[in-house]
Amino acid sequence: MARIVQKYGGTSVGEVDRIKRVANRVKACYDAGNQVVVVVSARSGVTNELIARAKAINPQPVEREMDMLLSVGEQETIALTAMALHTLGIPAVSRTGAQARNLPDPAHTRARIVDISGGDIDEQLEGGSVVIVAGFQGMNQNGHITTLGRGGSDLSAIAIAEAIKADLCQIYTDVDGIYTADPRVVPIASKINEIAYEELLEMASSGTKVMQSRAVEFAQKYKVPFEVRSSFNNNPGTLVKEEVASMEDVLVSGVSVDKNQSKITVTNLPDRPGTAATLFQAIAADGVIVDMIVQNIGRGGKANMTFTVPRDDVYRAEKAVKDAFSSTDEIEFIASDIAKISVVGIGMKSHSGVAARFFDALATSGISIHLFRTSEIKFCVGIDLVKAEDAVRAAHDAFELGS
Amino acid sequence: MARIVQKYGGTSVGEVDRIKRVANRVKACYDAGNQVVVVVSARSGVTNELIARAKAINPQPVEREMDMLLSVGEQETIALTAMALHTLGIPAVSRTGAQARNLPDPAHTRARIVDISGGDIDEQLEGGSVVIVAGFQGMNQNGHITTLGRGGSDLSAIAIAEAIKADLCQIYTDVDGIYTADPRVVPIASKINEIAYEELLEMASSGTKVMQSRAVEFAQKYKVPFEVRSSFNNNPGTLVKEEVASMEDVLVSGVSVDKNQSKITVTNLPDRPGTAATLFQAIAADGVIVDMIVQNIGRGGKANMTFTVPRDDVYRAEKAVKDAFSSTDEIEFIASDIAKISVVGIGMKSHSGVAARFFDALATSGISIHLFRTSEIKFCVGIDLVKAEDAVRAAHDAFELGS
Repeated sequence: MARIVQKYGGTSVGEVDRIKRVANRVKACYDAGNQVVVVVSARSGVTNELIARAKAINPQPVEREMDMLLSVGEQETIALTAMALHTLGIPAVSRTGAQARNLPDPAHTRARIVDISGGDIDEQLEGGSVVIVAGFQGMNQNGHITTLGRGGSDLSAIAIAEAIKADLCQIYTDVDGIYTADPRVVPIASKINEIAYEELLEMASSGTKVMQSRAVEFAQKYKVPFEVRSSFNNNPGTLVKEEVASMEDVLVSGVSVDKNQSKITVTNLPDRPGTAATLFQAIAADGVIVDMIVQNIGRGGKANMTFTVPRDDVYRAEKAVKDAFSSTDEIEFIASDIAKISVVGIGMKSHSGVAARFFDALATSGISIHLFRTSEIKFCVGIDLVKAEDAVRAAHDAFELGS
Repeated sequence: MARIVQKYGGTSVGEVDRIKRVANRVKACYDAGNQVVVVVSARSGVTNELIARAKAINPQPVEREMDMLLSVGEQETIALTAMALHTLGIPAVSRTGAQARNLPDPAHTRARIVDISGGDIDEQLEGGSVVIVAGFQGMNQNGHITTLGRGGSDLSAIAIAEAIKADLCQIYTDVDGIYTADPRVVPIASKINEIAYEELLEMASSGTKVMQSRAVEFAQKYKVPFEVRSSFNNNPGTLVKEEVASMEDVLVSGVSVDKNQSKITVTNLPDRPGTAATLFQAIAADGVIVDMIVQNIGRGGKANMTFTVPRDDVYRAEKAVKDAFSSTDEIEFIASDIAKISVVGIGMKSHSGVAARFFDALATSGISIHLFRTSEIKFCVGIDLVKAEDAVRAAHDAFELGS
């Protein structure tokens, strides 16, 4: 007998028939002798409907009332899911975020979990009930309903798994697990059986959006193993857990792509100490995150700086840069769209040669590298946006990730 | 400056535009210098939608989960109403039933309010905010969400008015107030300006369904005055309050009709002591409420008993009666549809002649009376169902209730 938390997202509970299917899946787990906690999101579409109604009344609703409004979505799902289990003869009770004692900080619409006890979940499980918990929501210490932001149900599930000392947390989604690359780009991409938290975090920050990073970070911090798997079939998914020695045998676990990056080149910068600091402090002060950086000394005592930012932040970055230097500097600001291709793997910690193999693969495919960055377990390059998919395929082949 | 509770039902908040209209009405009250608490129901239609979804999953959902499900209706409305007030520049905060410390008993789907403090409503009002409270729902001492049954939002409004010592509670609905008779039957029926709790309760039990009796009983118990008025115009409504001397000047306040009654005659009953007790104990044991009763001695030492019950209970009553007597008694059970016409008025306490005038009016209209019953402030008769509207008009004329 194990204690298992299962989380189902909005598409998995989007309609009455899907809720019934979730109930059947929960029943199978329960009938196998397990204690089961189910964390559910709002039915897909409900959140958007509620937002539309709110915007029709007030284009800029205050966040506290948005939380009050949006939290009804999961409350509906938990009740319906409990009813579906009752139809199958399974004892089940629903719990709102507040009732599960999910205690976030006071921030609205993007609260962080401060503490979570699970309320009476333990008692209910011991009494033989399945417990259905509303994801995404909690109640802060002032008694206000708050929500945890996008992906908040994943975070709820992992936090509850930690609170009740679950043996496993299963994140049900509409994909079979985490892949070595996006299967739409690389048809032979294969599902990864096991991956370390750190690798998944690096892949997420490189464009692989299976789960939001906050949930993975929480799991990493509290060492909560979880499995990402599909609610539409019975295939085993990807187990995400602490790094184990055998993971180092795999040089690269996956290839990610982020097509929403821009490369910015600032030319004519005065070549004197402090220029780089002025530049990047100005950008950071505006909340723009700079990723890859390369510096060149230009002619006539001038320097050029090239770096990447998320595409949506280009204009803010431009304004920050222009405000930071006097007009007499005559600096130039040139932006262009790029893609960031990342190879990620725990194995890089102990193996050399990743960069060489990666560069060689791109060169063989005729892809130029504008800039790159390494971290302990990740190697990223910035390339022309139009070459993004070719680059993913080339890297995937080079590291022999195909199934 | 007064402290006012305004309650808006489902039709008043049924659409985005109506919520905006409610907000404008609240603003007018707030701008006039009042402290305002708004109690709202779920948008009309939402409750039925939720019930349909539940039934599609489980034809007999458990009540606890129905409460969990249905309580999302008002939670949506309070958030949207708060947003609509913000659009108008009015500070407003929403509160669920639980947050307003509406503490019902443990019964689900029909809980009674045990205690209500209002939570921080007082503090919010003193701070200049309008407070929007979810009607119909509360949280019991075990931490479960419960709902108060049909008409529960009226009860919430009156209970909150009592808790925060409001000067007035306004129940906004889709009619202008309480009328001397149903205006669809009696076109010259007039709106009653003031009525005693007791009169309204008697009218409600006689078929005038403006508010559920539980809310009126609560108001009577705690002496909370309230006004029933329309949310679609600015006409003054009907003030419901404790009996005052001047009310006795009016002999009859209104005429009600209940078309859902059946007359039952049981014949061949043994004419011996205890027969009536056996009969009515059997019916009462099945939860059927008997209203008017008349007994006749028949021939050959047999008695007949005629009484009325709600039409839906006829079959239960029949079964109870047949089970209570042995088959050798050969009793007969005959049921027919009737209407109950009631005249209600505090004035009856101190004036005589009501029965005579009522009987005369019906006789003049050619309406036979099958049976009747009197109480301190009400006189009811049972007549043929098809004559119901004629009887209402005749009584309305006889007591000069027209405007």
